[in-house]
Amino acid sequence: MRIIDTQRSGNCWKVRLLASFVGIELRRTTLSIDRGDLQSAGFTAIAPMKRVPVLELDDGSLLSESGAILFYLAQGTPWWPQTPIAQAQTLAWMHFEQEQHMRPLAPLRLHLALRKDIAPTDPRARNWLQEGHDALAILEAHLATGRQWVSTDAAPSIADIALYPYTRMSPMGGVDLGRYPQVQQWLARIEGLPGYEPLFPGQPHLNLSTLETSG
Amino acid sequence: MRIIDTQRSGNCWKVRLLASFVGIELRRTTLSIDRGDLQSAGFTAIAPMKRVPVLELDDGSLLSESGAILFYLAQGTPWWPQTPIAQAQTLAWMHFEQEQHMRPLAPLRLHLALRKDIAPTDPRARNWLQEGHDALAILEAHLATGRQWVSTDAAPSIADIALYPYTRMSPMGGVDLGRYPQVQQWLARIEGLPGYEPLFPGQPHLNLSTLETSG
Ligand SMILES: N[C@@H](CCC(=O)N[C@@H](CS)C(=O)NCC(=O)O)C(=O)O
Ligand SMILES: N[C@@H](CCC(=O)N[C@@H](CS)C(=O)NCC(=O)O)C(=O)O
Repeated sequence: MRIIDTQRSGNCWKVRLLASFVGIELRRTTLSIDRGDLQSAGFTAIAPMKRVPVLELDDGSLLSESGAILFYLAQGTPWWPQTPIAQAQTLAWMHFEQEQHMRPLAPLRLHLALRKDIAPTDPRARNWLQEGHDALAILEAHLATGRQWVSTDAAPSIADIALYPYTRMSPMGGVDLGRYPQVQQWLARIEGLPGYEPLFPGQPHLNLSTLETSG
Repeated sequence: MRIIDTQRSGNCWKVRLLASFVGIELRRTTLSIDRGDLQSAGFTAIAPMKRVPVLELDDGSLLSESGAILFYLAQGTPWWPQTPIAQAQTLAWMHFEQEQHMRPLAPLRLHLALRKDIAPTDPRARNWLQEGHDALAILEAHLATGRQWVSTDAAPSIADIALYPYTRMSPMGGVDLGRYPQVQQWLARIEGLPGYEPLFPGQPHLNLSTLETSG
């Protein structure tokens, strides 16, 4: 199997994280946003939603959307829970991530820290920051009910992986994670799991905030 | 089982649509946004993500997020496909809906047609309209490959249900669906299925655009 990704994408990081945790070997083809790869006709032919990540299966079929790829790769592993209700709760937090959490936190980081093309005082940035804080407060309150993991009690699930990257990188967009102690402990639990892989393997993830280019 | 919803919510409509298609009887408790029900302490106690719909199971447990509720109710029905890859493709289009499609089209309709508190010329409205058109163009191109349904060939899935309401109601936000003939035919196919239920049962859905109040 092959993952088509970009270097700094949190949505693509999710897929590599799960693959590393469960020991699936993925070939990797990394596209460049700066070079315009995502606007090329070749890319839209394999990615109807015009986004990375895309997973290419061994039979050549293609799967878009980080959440759907996590679901597919987690089948038969402890990262996809067994009962329909636990599966549904896992999907609920993954939908929350897409709509309430990643949707503001990803552009906040992209425009403030990577592209540096929007000022923190811009109304759009203020709005993303506010919505990002709303989402993190929901996650904090949820974890404060005494749970170790987001959607299941005994072990982490793909909901934890889905919520991890844009939470971890939110300080690049100006979010003070000090306000969310439960979230910080949960981040540390994920980073302590065997197989954890930073965004840039070989580099400590704390260097994230010093990156200059987009992608 | 009981669905906690609001009157005019497209996300809640999805759940009632599926229940009606598969013949699941749901009790219904309809909250009022205008009355402030969603800000009440009682509501946040049952809805950690502070959103409707919420499904209450017979054992009292609660499930948020329309997509997760669709997944749960569709288990064992033809609306959730059988193979892992078809399931993953279904989830991919549901994640697309949450992040690229509903995210602009829902506020466009809410603020332009229901609350009427943002002008069509407002930069936010222009942005939602542009993003909504981008999403509908992706759906149009996907359906134009000769498929009847969004994620499966032979029969509709919960991806069709997830994408239906905010596509159907997009003209309320100023979207001209005439630009998307494949999408229009797909809407008509869904509306022709036995068990189809309009947003307001007993009223033709064509009246949607004349509603005045929010919720
Ligand atoms: N819902 C999608 C979102 C993917 C997404 O936003 N990918 C970004 C990179 S992180 C992308 O492809 N951006 C290119 C563009 O927007 O043109 C997922 O979870 O996979
Ligand atoms: N991702 C959620 C979104 C649900 C949603 O946005 N619900 C709206 C009604 S359509 C709501 O509860 N709005 C209340 C609020 O935002 O305070 C889902 O698909 O269920």
